[in-house]
Amino acid sequence: MSDKTAIEKLEGLGKKMVKEIEKEEGPTFETTLRTKSNTIYDEGVGCLRMGDKKELRKFLSVAQARTFMQTVAVAAKTKKFIKEDLHASIRSLFYQLKFSLGEDIDEDMFSEQQESNALIEDLEVALGIKREDLHLTTERKGVVAGPIIIKDKFGGEESTIDGTAMGRSGWGIPSDVDNDIDFKTTAKYVLVCEKDAMWQRLNEDKFWKKENCLLITPKGQSSRGTRRLLRKLADKKLPIYCFMDCDAWGWYIYWTIKTGSMNLAYLGMDFAVPEAKFIGVTMDDIEEFKFLQKLTIRAKDVDLKRAEEMLGYPWINRHKEWVRNLKLVASTKKKIEQDALQGERLTFVGEYIKQKIEGKEWLP
Amino acid sequence: MSDKTAIEKLEGLGKKMVKEIEKEEGPTFETTLRTKSNTIYDEGVGCLRMGDKKELRKFLSVAQARTFMQTVAVAAKTKKFIKEDLHASIRSLFYQLKFSLGEDIDEDMFSEQQESNALIEDLEVALGIKREDLHLTTERKGVVAGPIIIKDKFGGEESTIDGTAMGRSGWGIPSDVDNDIDFKTTAKYVLVCEKDAMWQRLNEDKFWKKENCLLITPKGQSSRGTRRLLRKLADKKLPIYCFMDCDAWGWYIYWTIKTGSMNLAYLGMDFAVPEAKFIGVTMDDIEEFKFLQKLTIRAKDVDLKRAEEMLGYPWINRHKEWVRNLKLVASTKKKIEQDALQGERLTFVGEYIKQKIEGKEWLP
Repeated sequence: MSDKTAIEKLEGLGKKMVKEIEKEEGPTFETTLRTKSNTIYDEGVGCLRMGDKKELRKFLSVAQARTFMQTVAVAAKTKKFIKEDLHASIRSLFYQLKFSLGEDIDEDMFSEQQESNALIEDLEVALGIKREDLHLTTERKGVVAGPIIIKDKFGGEESTIDGTAMGRSGWGIPSDVDNDIDFKTTAKYVLVCEKDAMWQRLNEDKFWKKENCLLITPKGQSSRGTRRLLRKLADKKLPIYCFMDCDAWGWYIYWTIKTGSMNLAYLGMDFAVPEAKFIGVTMDDIEEFKFLQKLTIRAKDVDLKRAEEMLGYPWINRHKEWVRNLKLVASTKKKIEQDALQGERLTFVGEYIKQKIEGKEWLP
Repeated sequence: MSDKTAIEKLEGLGKKMVKEIEKEEGPTFETTLRTKSNTIYDEGVGCLRMGDKKELRKFLSVAQARTFMQTVAVAAKTKKFIKEDLHASIRSLFYQLKFSLGEDIDEDMFSEQQESNALIEDLEVALGIKREDLHLTTERKGVVAGPIIIKDKFGGEESTIDGTAMGRSGWGIPSDVDNDIDFKTTAKYVLVCEKDAMWQRLNEDKFWKKENCLLITPKGQSSRGTRRLLRKLADKKLPIYCFMDCDAWGWYIYWTIKTGSMNLAYLGMDFAVPEAKFIGVTMDDIEEFKFLQKLTIRAKDVDLKRAEEMLGYPWINRHKEWVRNLKLVASTKKKIEQDALQGERLTFVGEYIKQKIEGKEWLP
């Protein structure tokens, strides 16, 4: 989104409130209700998103006045950041508000560690804008190697980065992959590999070169930047294959990429990749690759609980392959990690991935 | 260390054991005792390291046989990795051992999350070798921007990376900065910035260009790779200035870079940078920069406890500046974060750092 559009949206919010005041009404702020009851699975596009229920916040309400005032202050500060053409973290935003408004700011609300941030989510949802467009930086994580050329206009200069020439490091996925940044790729697919250590192994094997693919690790749960990049790659019609552990955490990382999660449903389709496929590892693999039989490990309570939960989600339990695999975890009380594929031979992993993709052996 | 030397060291260990067996003695393995009581602060070089006490492990001991056998197995597997010219994580090592040795492997001992890993530490200390030289990858974290040219020979190809042309992302510090990788820099100093969000802010201001410095963030606590890189930069006579929060975590990150920590003392001088200086933020800053007075936050119990502990370490309490600052935290029950410097103006941070360095206003 252009800075101009972002400013117009922020100013629109302010102008509406001014009008209300001029009419001697209390200012209000309408946003979509971000609760579990207003979270829906959108069959059409295949992702979790917020439903249509709205919430009206009123300044002239004892319960809402403080948050209301802070929301308006956040809007004003981010408008200033855009005008200055500078970017800041939400922690910096907290200190700017504290400087302007004094002590009446809830520090915990602006913690960088916090996945969601009520005030900023309010603005994102109400204005149909992403926090990145408000010049707010988010936690960045995730690395890419392979045939991609990035043009990054940043801090007044343009850099060209070649994803095939980044050695052992790869290109670090930034907080914002939309504004003043562009890329071209000749890859034929994307492999998303849960763990950075496994990414390093595949990078050493030059897997991306042999396969002409993009090798991406989110380093665990995907950052916003990584999810946006995957969405943009899927928009370019590249298949997105996910290679994760067969356990609670691996499944969660996959489904967050694919449909979003309950907590992040407000992000909707901008951050979801319904096209994503789960190529492994799966409980089915233990049958197919006999050496894995001695390399399973005990499923923990969190794995069993998560499998149970997932079996209850209609967008998951409609897939018989997922039901079979999740039930196998529950009945055997075992799980398997992607690293287990290296038990016999370090270089086996690449062969496994190729076989899976060529044979279309994936879970939906 | 060359692969040849690493293999010689591993084979030396094996040969010694074979000799013992030939003499009809039980095989033994001598390593340095890694306990708090054998941790010393080395006045001469200015870092924490292990003392001279040794520990003799015996295979023919009910208590030690299992660990002993696993240590030998780790040595054998890492020798295999070096011969194959492949790198693996300690999680992969766990699966390779599990495949060879079966169930008798302690999974938790090989968790990637674990800072220290008893079996591998044994080998590192006993053989005087780094795990990176054994082709084991470690968690990588940390980013660099600025005038540095990296030559990275990896996976059979050489890449040249220019630290001034990495846009918003920077160059990701790899797990191993010693083997098959080299760099040149024209920077006049190194700024180590605790938080990635602050690094992004300074990178946007092109601070490294204006100052001709290297801008590094460890992203919190430093990885082994980041600590080694800082050691190598200090060896090139570059001053290392650290810019951290004035709180328990910031101090810990600084002192780990400078002297090592109690838990990581076995790493000794290869990973310590006694030359490092702490440029801020400090409690003294609150006097000097008046706008900070409204931007302090409440010190938590962990901060107060840590300040107390640090006042007890002779290598810290010998510095009156540290004593004064730590006592101020204890008496005011307040602390201050690096982000607070952005409260009035986002771009103030760069000016602050320049003033501090030019005025030599740092803590030792």
